[in-house]
Amino acid sequence: MLDISRRRLMQTAAVGFASMAASRVAIADGAPLASWNDGAARTRIIDFVTATVTEGGADYVAPKDRIAVFDNDGTLWCEKPAYFQLLFALDRIKAMAPEHPEWKDKEPFKRAVTGDLESLAKQGEHGLLEIMMETHAGMNVDEFQAIVADWLGTATHPKFKRRYDTLIFQPMLELLSYLRDNEYETWIVSGGGIEFLRTFAERAYGIPPQQVVGSSIQTVFEIKDGKPQLIRLPKIDFIDDNAGKPVGINKFIGKRPVFAAGNSDGDLQMLQWTTSGTGPRLGLIVHHTDEEREFAYDRKSSVGKLDNALDAAQTEGWLVVDMKTEWKSVFPAV
Amino acid sequence: MLDISRRRLMQTAAVGFASMAASRVAIADGAPLASWNDGAARTRIIDFVTATVTEGGADYVAPKDRIAVFDNDGTLWCEKPAYFQLLFALDRIKAMAPEHPEWKDKEPFKRAVTGDLESLAKQGEHGLLEIMMETHAGMNVDEFQAIVADWLGTATHPKFKRRYDTLIFQPMLELLSYLRDNEYETWIVSGGGIEFLRTFAERAYGIPPQQVVGSSIQTVFEIKDGKPQLIRLPKIDFIDDNAGKPVGINKFIGKRPVFAAGNSDGDLQMLQWTTSGTGPRLGLIVHHTDEEREFAYDRKSSVGKLDNALDAAQTEGWLVVDMKTEWKSVFPAV
Repeated sequence: MLDISRRRLMQTAAVGFASMAASRVAIADGAPLASWNDGAARTRIIDFVTATVTEGGADYVAPKDRIAVFDNDGTLWCEKPAYFQLLFALDRIKAMAPEHPEWKDKEPFKRAVTGDLESLAKQGEHGLLEIMMETHAGMNVDEFQAIVADWLGTATHPKFKRRYDTLIFQPMLELLSYLRDNEYETWIVSGGGIEFLRTFAERAYGIPPQQVVGSSIQTVFEIKDGKPQLIRLPKIDFIDDNAGKPVGINKFIGKRPVFAAGNSDGDLQMLQWTTSGTGPRLGLIVHHTDEEREFAYDRKSSVGKLDNALDAAQTEGWLVVDMKTEWKSVFPAV
Repeated sequence: MLDISRRRLMQTAAVGFASMAASRVAIADGAPLASWNDGAARTRIIDFVTATVTEGGADYVAPKDRIAVFDNDGTLWCEKPAYFQLLFALDRIKAMAPEHPEWKDKEPFKRAVTGDLESLAKQGEHGLLEIMMETHAGMNVDEFQAIVADWLGTATHPKFKRRYDTLIFQPMLELLSYLRDNEYETWIVSGGGIEFLRTFAERAYGIPPQQVVGSSIQTVFEIKDGKPQLIRLPKIDFIDDNAGKPVGINKFIGKRPVFAAGNSDGDLQMLQWTTSGTGPRLGLIVHHTDEEREFAYDRKSSVGKLDNALDAAQTEGWLVVDMKTEWKSVFPAV
């Protein structure tokens, strides 16, 4: 496993936006949450949502306040063996290498070209930051968006041998749809790059670009060759992780969510902020317990570490979803 | 008139959010844009919107791409004799003065307490910045929201002798409603403070907190006395003005708007960014020409200066709305 902190890794993430037409979001037909076993998790979710939409009930929430926020890496899609955005960056380094002969003798690019994650991790955070900046900045927003879309359309996952944007969790797609059917507005609040996420969030999750909160690098407006452009700079703008998540929620949404879902310690403060509001609130943690169908990891994992938030779930009464026992299936059929 | 640049003045603006129930947004009944004279401006707006929603037409825009952005100061509400947010800050200084006896001998507070705008302007930008920080930071987001709501509920405008949040432009309210009736998503993109705006945007304009883009100061997440809080710091986070406006649009919305409305040079880049996209686009400028019903100002004004953008409107074909001749009424009846 890579020994890099999520925070440092994501300090460079960001992306070009895209609007994509097709959607593979699950459409509710018949009973909601069809890929969830008829167990405690499914029951608790349905009871909560039902209570918040029942007019006249003690836990009724007006539609305009029905805000649900979701972490992305490890919550809506897979995050192993490393954050997919890092795998994108490494593939970019390889693709760009022919135009950079100087990388043959220059770290961290020399190691990055080999694609060996273990070796690369030894370069430390600064090396990874260099790789993220090299691959994420220096172009305009449209150009970056096109590069990510191209990668998503061709690259495949080392274990599952399928496109990264198909490694999304079917039960979570159904949860998103179920919430929207109940007039919840669904948002992504991710440590990943906002523009990276925007290239596929609408198509994969039915979440439009304006409902994505993420980490960002700075952009500047320039008129270049007579054409207004937004140029991406190799400078951090905002880190939407840990204590940054409630800050990002307040900045972009301006309301405290009613529902929050995460899977790691990076989501702890988002869960605290959400569930400490008055009235009904639900915090949910996806617990990766399924080595066979996906991956099993928590307290000791370097990617998606779930330790403090797992303890807090007990004291705060958050719903911990045991992937292995609660989910009938993990990924959508392709 | 105050001799202060909008950019510097707004470098401190920001606010607590609020969701308020009642809405005084005009409801379309019968012909749209009822407060607009049956002239060139009204016709051009209706023709544009009709073309963009006509399926099969050459200028059709899918609902998900129907993004309309509006500046606030001078576009949706009045901005004279000074930005209302500055008037709020000065009223706050007066209200806070009894607890700060040291201000009696300390500038800029000494002048601010007198409420004399001319005298205060002589303190320069740094003095104004100090006043904005003193009045906008140091509390949590909820507390700030309550302070702004209280001010809006009691303070009155020196010329019109009515609440500031009633000095909104009736024809623009109708334009917002008309766009929403045609499945446009309406956004505020303002140099003013995002949290200041959020306290009244939903009630006044029907624009929810999550569709407000504005300038901001930094906030931090803290658990204080066991309670998660977002604390406002006296540090600039983002200036959503001039070239910052397209950056803010990209950051928060992630799509290029189809329609943009402004009134000053601070909106120039937002108008350039919007109208340089492919397909149908409309840029609109509110031209303050009505000394009797509101105010008349443009190229030489220190607040809401309209000079370069007025020239650009000619070359770019933006719609310049002459308030005096195009609008039947300016403010809603109270």
